[in-house]
Amino acid sequence: MEPVLFYGVPHGCSFGSIVALEWLGQPYRLHRIDMLSKRSEGFARVSPLGQTPAMIAPDGKPLTESLAILHNIAARGLDKGLGFAQGTREFDDLNWMLSYLHTTLHSDLGYGWNAYKLDEDDHAGKAFLRRLAREKSAEAYAYLQGVLEGREWLAGNTKTVADAYFIGIARWGEDLGLFDIARDFPGIHRHMARLEADPAVIFAHAIEDETPHRSSGGFCGQLTAQDLDARLAA
Amino acid sequence: MEPVLFYGVPHGCSFGSIVALEWLGQPYRLHRIDMLSKRSEGFARVSPLGQTPAMIAPDGKPLTESLAILHNIAARGLDKGLGFAQGTREFDDLNWMLSYLHTTLHSDLGYGWNAYKLDEDDHAGKAFLRRLAREKSAEAYAYLQGVLEGREWLAGNTKTVADAYFIGIARWGEDLGLFDIARDFPGIHRHMARLEADPAVIFAHAIEDETPHRSSGGFCGQLTAQDLDARLAA
Ligand SMILES: N[C@@H](CCC(=O)N[C@@H](CS)C(=O)NCC(=O)O)C(=O)O
Ligand SMILES: N[C@@H](CCC(=O)N[C@@H](CS)C(=O)NCC(=O)O)C(=O)O
Repeated sequence: MEPVLFYGVPHGCSFGSIVALEWLGQPYRLHRIDMLSKRSEGFARVSPLGQTPAMIAPDGKPLTESLAILHNIAARGLDKGLGFAQGTREFDDLNWMLSYLHTTLHSDLGYGWNAYKLDEDDHAGKAFLRRLAREKSAEAYAYLQGVLEGREWLAGNTKTVADAYFIGIARWGEDLGLFDIARDFPGIHRHMARLEADPAVIFAHAIEDETPHRSSGGFCGQLTAQDLDARLAA
Repeated sequence: MEPVLFYGVPHGCSFGSIVALEWLGQPYRLHRIDMLSKRSEGFARVSPLGQTPAMIAPDGKPLTESLAILHNIAARGLDKGLGFAQGTREFDDLNWMLSYLHTTLHSDLGYGWNAYKLDEDDHAGKAFLRRLAREKSAEAYAYLQGVLEGREWLAGNTKTVADAYFIGIARWGEDLGLFDIARDFPGIHRHMARLEADPAVIFAHAIEDETPHRSSGGFCGQLTAQDLDARLAA
């Protein structure tokens, strides 16, 4: 059956998985998770840690972790260049980039998100985490900007799941109020602007914002809570 | 030519890549990097960020990031079960586990390592980061312990690069003085003890400690600085 992606709002890293699914062009459904409140029982069965993205994979089983979900999509999209065949240099390069984005950019900005989880009046802790987030992620943005100097896409010669993942998390530097990306990292801004013009990215924003949307891929609609229960009972 | 792995001491996460190379059984060399001092010029060319692990891959090109290196090794070790064919559920599960270990366990313990990078007299900052490391990694150890309850290996039914990676980083909880793993996470301790008895793990410790060692894989010796220059000039 068509896979279901559980995406988190606001501004979850699952954004990239929506983009990748659009690029893949095969049938899929979405299920919206408000990360600040609604955690359905069905969701807990798919994602024991309560994190998004999570997926009911095409084989019907749960799959969590961005990199695992992106690899699953990439493996189905080799003919489209979304990923590369195991054992090739392009596969190595894609893994290098996904890994860098995931551990470095995602984790560094994560210091900033963790500031929100501290007690309201832990001002010192919050300031400290924000400083770490700023210092560390500035390095990561600069490094990625350097990588992008010599190439059009983050890995290989086509847009891949790495670009999809990138566009979902690169925005956090502004969400957290750490940078003005256009001013501070023009090379990053250029790559973001280019991706923002992509129909799949426009679609993913509309999905997040609940505004009218048109899929250029295989979107088959949101899965209702009832349908989810039915799928999980099967 | 045979690949070269740059491993970091003391107790780098590159430990897992040494173990995986041993399990693979194909010729390889090692090059030691003292993370606290010696950063050779050759190393900087292979690892622009100065991080270990780094590899001169079998194709002669540099490759960094644990997950990319482990995937490269796994792709060459599919017949040994070190990894799984792209597009299978086992491949998904391996990616899920690698990703979890990498972002969650590695990053959470990373808060603890970052404490050492603060100014000597930033006591509040150090204490704060250690608390975060303890709280967050306790969750990660507990989660992994739960995963191990129902299975012998972290992903699939054979020892994979995920187990190799695990044994290199799971020890950090004690290195950082955060836990007594045998007491606090007996299921984690069990898996560690089992891996510690593996000839590849025994070999990797001896390499780190510079004590007599016997490879049960394809170890062809350390690469000297001169040999490295020659390889990089080629
Ligand atoms: N290691 C996971 C982390 C995913 C993650 O951090 N998800 C965030 C949203 S971007 C989340 O679910 N946060 C809520 C929580 O951790 O409770 C992955 O890469 O997929
Ligand atoms: N994202 C990298 C991180 C590797 C990493 O954290 N390496 C540590 C040793 S375990 C290191 O090189 N630290 C020194 C530094 O960052 O300067 C990976 O997963 O390979």
